[in-house]
Amino acid sequence: MKPSELNIAFAGSRMDRADRLRTDASALDALKGPRARLLLLDGLAPQLGDDGGLAWGSLADADPQGELVFLGLLEGAACFAEVKPALWQGRVAGPNFRQLFGMIAPDDLAIYGGAKALVDWHARHRFCARCGSPTMMTKGGWQRNCTAEACKAEHFPRVDPVTIMLVELAGAAEPTVLLGRQPMFPPGNYSALAGFVEPGETIEEAVAREIEEEAGVRARDVSYVASQPWPFVSSLMIGCHAWADDDALTIDRNELDDARWFTRSEVMRAFARDPEAPLQLPPAAAIAHQLLRWWVARG
Amino acid sequence: MKPSELNIAFAGSRMDRADRLRTDASALDALKGPRARLLLLDGLAPQLGDDGGLAWGSLADADPQGELVFLGLLEGAACFAEVKPALWQGRVAGPNFRQLFGMIAPDDLAIYGGAKALVDWHARHRFCARCGSPTMMTKGGWQRNCTAEACKAEHFPRVDPVTIMLVELAGAAEPTVLLGRQPMFPPGNYSALAGFVEPGETIEEAVAREIEEEAGVRARDVSYVASQPWPFVSSLMIGCHAWADDDALTIDRNELDDARWFTRSEVMRAFARDPEAPLQLPPAAAIAHQLLRWWVARG
Repeated sequence: MKPSELNIAFAGSRMDRADRLRTDASALDALKGPRARLLLLDGLAPQLGDDGGLAWGSLADADPQGELVFLGLLEGAACFAEVKPALWQGRVAGPNFRQLFGMIAPDDLAIYGGAKALVDWHARHRFCARCGSPTMMTKGGWQRNCTAEACKAEHFPRVDPVTIMLVELAGAAEPTVLLGRQPMFPPGNYSALAGFVEPGETIEEAVAREIEEEAGVRARDVSYVASQPWPFVSSLMIGCHAWADDDALTIDRNELDDARWFTRSEVMRAFARDPEAPLQLPPAAAIAHQLLRWWVARG
Repeated sequence: MKPSELNIAFAGSRMDRADRLRTDASALDALKGPRARLLLLDGLAPQLGDDGGLAWGSLADADPQGELVFLGLLEGAACFAEVKPALWQGRVAGPNFRQLFGMIAPDDLAIYGGAKALVDWHARHRFCARCGSPTMMTKGGWQRNCTAEACKAEHFPRVDPVTIMLVELAGAAEPTVLLGRQPMFPPGNYSALAGFVEPGETIEEAVAREIEEEAGVRARDVSYVASQPWPFVSSLMIGCHAWADDDALTIDRNELDDARWFTRSEVMRAFARDPEAPLQLPPAAAIAHQLLRWWVARG
């Protein structure tokens, strides 16, 4: 199985981002006509139409006190999402991704995910981090500028790179992978280890550091497999594979409830939903699930 | 040549980030003794010692009005960098990376790069983007918290993922690659196309979008090659390769001064510093240079 054949949730948007229009204020205004579509959100959750797809309204449905983000062009129509005042006036919890997934077609999920990350960013960036003055949306919602004359700092939507990795034990009789569980996971669930990339490190260095920190395992020969946009809050999940030569674990109990080596046949039993399997898998929407699919198929 | 054999500037730090200590306030305090080392900066540029390496002082050299960032452990000593008031009171330009590179040994450059990105982030995040109140450093400089009781938002150092790509023309008589030049480049310089990953897209989707936007070329079969931390301001450069089937270009003149296809022999002449070569290469510190090394060696 090639990584490109995996089902990466929140990827595959059919929206044309039409970035050239973002900097063209008059073109953007002209797009805000009766044909323009507004992605309907309930807080940060998607509203669904009768057909189960994303519900779209017109700009007449938008709150005049809100801000409009230009998502792009879809089937010839300009698409917008709204940053409603309620989103910045209070704290609006994001939807539970387990509820979203399976309800919404993949390409709609991708459109929603991109919009949610962007709307959420605007709601949390009303002020300039540099000087504390209010910021103002510009470039169709792809930038905010500080309104203080003495500052005028420019701010851009944030995407946080996160490494997530399958660590495989070299020389094992059967292919064997390291998985861990966070305390918040449902009982029996294990997933790939993961952590944010920090300033000053490569993807490969971040992978090796996380494995060492969380499980006390030295990893080598990190390779990239696949990536995923993850809108909770706004991460770029960078899925990798690495090798380990030693199976001894020193688990960081502040981060992990447990970490264990699982054989391929154990993971395959989990995929088959065998009630006797020693683990349950992360949901299919998570890239960890897809990385495990790739790993099992690799043989 | 394997990607792991490339010389990735700003990678390869020998600092142990010792992240477990960040959340341990008493351990951090205990580390701030006479053995602790302070990375000496001149604005955001490194100070150099007589041996040409990074200059280190002690915490006695720190401004009492400044903030200390815990970088990690090096040769048993706790290492810190300082966010001086001057950094947030005015705008301090970053150093020119072309001047840095070649002056500083690779592992020192990596330590400096990580520290610079982090110090710079603190200088630009004195206030809460959510509510505009002052923020306060915590966790050894790996987090800032909003000081307003009603908000208490948590803020984390930012790393911006950027895709940078070699687009290769399928079916060409000689291996042929697409490079572009930004208006700010020195005359004759060409480099790989690049752009920020946006919310809602995978690495592969970001690569394809950038190539389409900047050069009007449809790319396929994107593959990851190597990555680089780039502390100007704080990016994670994600180096990729992609294939194109059509050599027709539609150049976005707002972004690029020019874009052209170059053959491998033309790129090799540039590596050989042939004055008649039709291009000059990006500096060796840039991952674009390293991607071209990899591509030329791949044959």
